[in-house]
Amino acid sequence: MGAKDVRVKAEELKRFMQAVFVKAGFTPEGAEQQADVLTWANLRGVDSHGVQRISWYLELVDKGQMKPRANIRIEKETPAVLLLDADYAPGPVVTILAMRKAIEKARTVGIGWAVIRNTLHQGAMGYYSLMAAKEGMAGISIVCNPPNTAPYGARAAGVHNSPIAICVPGKRHRPLMLDMATSIAARGKIDVAEDKGIAIPLGWALDKHGKPTTDPKAAAVLLPAGGGKGSGLAMMFECLTSLFVANPLLTPVFQGKPGATIHRQNSVVAAIDISTFTDLAQYQANADAIVDGIKALPTAEGFSEVLVPGEPEDRVYDERAKNGIPLPEGTLLKMRNASARFGVPLPAGL
Amino acid sequence: MGAKDVRVKAEELKRFMQAVFVKAGFTPEGAEQQADVLTWANLRGVDSHGVQRISWYLELVDKGQMKPRANIRIEKETPAVLLLDADYAPGPVVTILAMRKAIEKARTVGIGWAVIRNTLHQGAMGYYSLMAAKEGMAGISIVCNPPNTAPYGARAAGVHNSPIAICVPGKRHRPLMLDMATSIAARGKIDVAEDKGIAIPLGWALDKHGKPTTDPKAAAVLLPAGGGKGSGLAMMFECLTSLFVANPLLTPVFQGKPGATIHRQNSVVAAIDISTFTDLAQYQANADAIVDGIKALPTAEGFSEVLVPGEPEDRVYDERAKNGIPLPEGTLLKMRNASARFGVPLPAGL
Repeated sequence: MGAKDVRVKAEELKRFMQAVFVKAGFTPEGAEQQADVLTWANLRGVDSHGVQRISWYLELVDKGQMKPRANIRIEKETPAVLLLDADYAPGPVVTILAMRKAIEKARTVGIGWAVIRNTLHQGAMGYYSLMAAKEGMAGISIVCNPPNTAPYGARAAGVHNSPIAICVPGKRHRPLMLDMATSIAARGKIDVAEDKGIAIPLGWALDKHGKPTTDPKAAAVLLPAGGGKGSGLAMMFECLTSLFVANPLLTPVFQGKPGATIHRQNSVVAAIDISTFTDLAQYQANADAIVDGIKALPTAEGFSEVLVPGEPEDRVYDERAKNGIPLPEGTLLKMRNASARFGVPLPAGL
Repeated sequence: MGAKDVRVKAEELKRFMQAVFVKAGFTPEGAEQQADVLTWANLRGVDSHGVQRISWYLELVDKGQMKPRANIRIEKETPAVLLLDADYAPGPVVTILAMRKAIEKARTVGIGWAVIRNTLHQGAMGYYSLMAAKEGMAGISIVCNPPNTAPYGARAAGVHNSPIAICVPGKRHRPLMLDMATSIAARGKIDVAEDKGIAIPLGWALDKHGKPTTDPKAAAVLLPAGGGKGSGLAMMFECLTSLFVANPLLTPVFQGKPGATIHRQNSVVAAIDISTFTDLAQYQANADAIVDGIKALPTAEGFSEVLVPGEPEDRVYDERAKNGIPLPEGTLLKMRNASARFGVPLPAGL
């Protein structure tokens, strides 16, 4: 963020977004869920998945691609698994429902595994895995989209940079959270660079001709993390999500089918109940000890501290919860547009 | 392998190992399972997880660290999950059992999730995920060990380079298989370099002082794939395996507990039944289409072909199934020692 970015309190930002989403046709509960997922991302510093998405979400509603009041249906269900058709619901609305049901199942049989067809953008996937951790469970969340990332050895998009988020509870420490894209950098980070008017590092992306680029505007194809490991995980995540709901998102693009690149997602969210297997308090103490042990290791050259996954975001969370969420000019503009359109006042001071 | 490596037919190699393991105290069935997992790895060209391990396995038995006839017990069970105490059984013996049970559960409730405490080395984890794919299911296998890999930002070992193997069925194509370590290179690849007397690439490993090295003998600490992504996954895999069986493998080493670095593994193997969610034949056709689509993408500079995960190994498999498995001198020596010790004749021609 720039030095002169204005800041807004998290609860005010959330209230603003919630009011906008209600005006856009969301149910009050759905608007609250959507706003909460976005605010959580901003609090953690994951601005790519925060309020800057608001104009895109409104556009998706305008185009009829996102249904604020979708007909979410349970298609298949056993004591352990669930298949939900999202009917193009806002991601948080269907995914919170799916994770709640997964948690219920895990409480009964030890695991709940919920696959979702045709949800819209779900925001930061860590949110859902954290829901499980708060209930004394491990949470796993995976999502797929149409391709945006070059498989290892290719120079065109063939997989999505599907993220995976895994979260487990600590005790003294906050839940251990890994929330990672399978590309070197998430698409949202490139969007943020574009909003800020800065270059991206070489190695993040290719342009539409398959040439490496540092221009966020020219970035057309992402590059996988760890070469074939990142794109291999991404390919298998399509198999674990889209193929399980009979709704492939990669192959229609290869085959040039009309509408194949229209945004929509398939996903799996899972909860595994710790108490079914072992003592929860002991588990949490063991998780704390991992954090303590890793942080006490000698640092590599160029590092002053060893940070565990999620720790940088936790620190930003604390700072922003206290001082407010900074809003770059590009993001403010999107909020002003939404405010003007729906007659929803901006948070005080903006 | 060297140009003059002798070759042995897969079934003869398997028969030899099976006979050796029986002499070492395995049950006939356990010896067959152990030999099959090793032979499968050799067939796929994953020599780091093949017959070259035989001397180490025998050493583990001699030391009493591996129990050829362990008292494997089911500690917890629901219709969907299972906790097995392996009692230091040979990895294939307990893991084949665990995956079979996971497959049974998946057939009934859609998913089976089996965690295993204190197994010995399980070999190539893809073997178990493939078991699920052969039954029309997705297979997921994860394993943890004491630390051997530097977390991102550290110069000492703090996580294990825990592999994950995911496998789903195709139809025209063989099962889609990703079997990857979370380090840049698997430890076994460094062992193979040592056997061959060649250097390893810079960036694979650090020496015991935390300095980069190209000497496989000096390699003491592996480096994670994709920086914090690889080591983040590894840390969470410890949380999904070891912590669920109340048997941490990372923290005892941090705390300097006696015996903390002794080899043993915790693991999870899971099966997800495709037919519970959708039509299996359609799933398989969709999986085939992903392979076809990715392979048809334009290649990146320096590549003549786009290969999907598992494809290089499938090709080696075909070649070796036909022409036999090549055995470098270092591996042959290990086989000769086992042959002499137990009076088990080497395969013909060796």
